[in-house]
Amino acid sequence: MHDDARSPDARPRGRALSADCPSRRLLGDITSKWGVLVLVSLHGGPRRWSELLRGIGGISEKMLAQTLRTLEGDGIVLREARPVVPPHVEYRLTDAGREVTDLLLPLLNWAETHVPLVVGEDGTPAGAR
Amino acid sequence: MHDDARSPDARPRGRALSADCPSRRLLGDITSKWGVLVLVSLHGGPRRWSELLRGIGGISEKMLAQTLRTLEGDGIVLREARPVVPPHVEYRLTDAGREVTDLLLPLLNWAETHVPLVVGEDGTPAGAR
Repeated sequence: MHDDARSPDARPRGRALSADCPSRRLLGDITSKWGVLVLVSLHGGPRRWSELLRGIGGISEKMLAQTLRTLEGDGIVLREARPVVPPHVEYRLTDAGREVTDLLLPLLNWAETHVPLVVGEDGTPAGAR
Repeated sequence: MHDDARSPDARPRGRALSADCPSRRLLGDITSKWGVLVLVSLHGGPRRWSELLRGIGGISEKMLAQTLRTLEGDGIVLREARPVVPPHVEYRLTDAGREVTDLLLPLLNWAETHVPLVVGEDGTPAGAR
């Protein structure tokens, strides 16, 4: 059987180790400091602007707007005006966004459970021990 | 059975959505633009400085040095002086580094196979269509 349309190897693919490959930009968008946290915050379902701003510690309005715009441009996040009273805007993951967030969650989990790598049990940075 | 030492839930863990949680820094180190590419480059085995510099398109000596130092500090990469003639230095993943790189590879693969998301089949940026 030769079903090129369904074979991942048959599709054109990038090479992130090449400086000028657009896959590197896409990789950068989904692994950016705020990109990761926005995507993970949307994993539970659609969120309003104010929920994202409140839920992601330390993010500024400017960085949230810029991150959402970038992820929208990549086809990873969808901005949706909800026809309710009063009207409001929600952000949610596209199918591609869910795919990539499913891959990001294990990384987030790894970082959260490996904090002792960088901070000792006694709270001192690992480098100081 | 209660085997706390082996239960992931029993260990202290961070919360990357909190601005001051050290897990966010660790997450940032492993998902930084150059961090991802250095880790992925070390996945195949130990590499010398010059091999990394050559293999990662666009990285400067300064950024490579800084990235390796950060990942060393996190206990993810090991710097090893090899007792050969002439002596040389190699960088390799620690056990934790292999763990995290195994999680990064599917993300890299996702980005490389989803290039059409950001660049159309005809080479134009998705936003221009």
